[in-house]
Amino acid sequence: MTLLAEALAQIQREIDGKFDALLPLPADPRSRLVEAMRYAAIGGGKRLRPLLVAATAEMFRVDRDAALRAGAAVEAIHVYSLIHDDLPCMDDDDLRHGKPTLHRQFDEATAVLAGDALHDLAFEILSDPATSGDPFTRIELVRTLSTASGAQGMAGGQMMDMVAEGESFDLPTVTRLQQLKTGALLGASVEMGAILGKIAPEGRTHLRGYARDIGLAFQIADDLLDHEGDEAAAGKALRKDAVAGKETFVSLLGPERARAQASALVDQAIAHLAQHGKEADLLRDVARYIVERKH
Amino acid sequence: MTLLAEALAQIQREIDGKFDALLPLPADPRSRLVEAMRYAAIGGGKRLRPLLVAATAEMFRVDRDAALRAGAAVEAIHVYSLIHDDLPCMDDDDLRHGKPTLHRQFDEATAVLAGDALHDLAFEILSDPATSGDPFTRIELVRTLSTASGAQGMAGGQMMDMVAEGESFDLPTVTRLQQLKTGALLGASVEMGAILGKIAPEGRTHLRGYARDIGLAFQIADDLLDHEGDEAAAGKALRKDAVAGKETFVSLLGPERARAQASALVDQAIAHLAQHGKEADLLRDVARYIVERKH
Repeated sequence: MTLLAEALAQIQREIDGKFDALLPLPADPRSRLVEAMRYAAIGGGKRLRPLLVAATAEMFRVDRDAALRAGAAVEAIHVYSLIHDDLPCMDDDDLRHGKPTLHRQFDEATAVLAGDALHDLAFEILSDPATSGDPFTRIELVRTLSTASGAQGMAGGQMMDMVAEGESFDLPTVTRLQQLKTGALLGASVEMGAILGKIAPEGRTHLRGYARDIGLAFQIADDLLDHEGDEAAAGKALRKDAVAGKETFVSLLGPERARAQASALVDQAIAHLAQHGKEADLLRDVARYIVERKH
Repeated sequence: MTLLAEALAQIQREIDGKFDALLPLPADPRSRLVEAMRYAAIGGGKRLRPLLVAATAEMFRVDRDAALRAGAAVEAIHVYSLIHDDLPCMDDDDLRHGKPTLHRQFDEATAVLAGDALHDLAFEILSDPATSGDPFTRIELVRTLSTASGAQGMAGGQMMDMVAEGESFDLPTVTRLQQLKTGALLGASVEMGAILGKIAPEGRTHLRGYARDIGLAFQIADDLLDHEGDEAAAGKALRKDAVAGKETFVSLLGPERARAQASALVDQAIAHLAQHGKEADLLRDVARYIVERKH
């Protein structure tokens, strides 16, 4: 196995283990809520965001358990956003990671609530002294994640995406939309690894550059996979943007220019890591993987 | 005007002002999201939770702006929970504070998303150094609020409430349900005022006792108002629990014993404040108001 394949397999095991430990089933009627949270959080997803946290944290010799806790917090936000995006009033999706979406498996109200509780879980994890003995580190993690998740980040991007239907967004607007919708959380993941490593904001500029570039490359790759991919392999419905008349990088650039653009962004992302040696190899591999992945 | 009436009018103005400043309208398609957040957050509600934060903070001579920021954070959580509770898949309510619920005024997807973004806003506010220059204070606020809001608090109580339909919960189970669903956030409000006052956990025990008692008294009063109240005055639909066959304090105790129980809890709450002088008068008034209010 390559370095990256090993790292992905490892983080998937570790994050499943973390959620399993963080979400014990209570012996009261709240158990249905925790069962729903476990259904959505355990055993699915690439765990790309926790991998970014862990790979960055490792560069700065951060304790592995701290990195996994921060990774689980970002992933809890990602999972909650998928649960709410899948709801009938949003994308109305039936499948996620090849199994029924949460509202199909349980019911809509439980899905809304399990998403909300996972949203809190992220901040419960980060504010717990087990994540870092340093309160400043913990509060910087909270600040970075809440800003990336809210109206100035992911939720704002999600709203732009909803408004996109019926509008003809141009390339700068689609870029901005995707920077918020997907890029903000990917960027926060890298940033949180560096915060755990006690790197001051000035020392994180190049990592933010790396994160911004892979975030856009990720979305272009997603649009290409959506355009060309196979629903069975993806484990979810595809080509919904085209049906809804939304502009994507592929619709605006065409597949060939989109592919070239993604590839250029990966090169640029890797260039941001020039000051680092072998310790940044995993982040370099992640950048390449982001455009080479098959789903 | 009484001390309490003045304090309520003042905090309502101040919290409206805080949300107005915290939610500037962006000049891009995210504006719809922020408009929805403003619609739900500004100009409605008693602001009881911010009042509890501010009244407790004032006892310990905390800067007013810090207390208002923490109060706005608790209120953002309260408002997000009302938005999601009102959704068609949850309580399916059309009216809130006498105006159309958010999903009626905008649409369901916008309501889900605006709730999510207000949820983040709470932690964005608390993690901002403007709330407190001390990172330990900020992270303790985050920890208290996220725990009170999630599966071990409000969201857990909400799930118990959903399961309650068709079950015959006994008094201890209804008490536990309400302690989570309503009590957790009221308790967090008092606790956050004390955290801003740099009172250590041991020094907050009596305040937690006060909060627990007023939390239960609040819910019993709510059940009585629901049983006897007027829908126009309440600005929302009433007697939905009875229709759904859910047990309440009134259905389990009868109105007379319920009223006596609420009154005993208020006395007990006030007794918890015995060590404080005049500086706790507002908290005492809040305790009395909680059972005397007409909506």
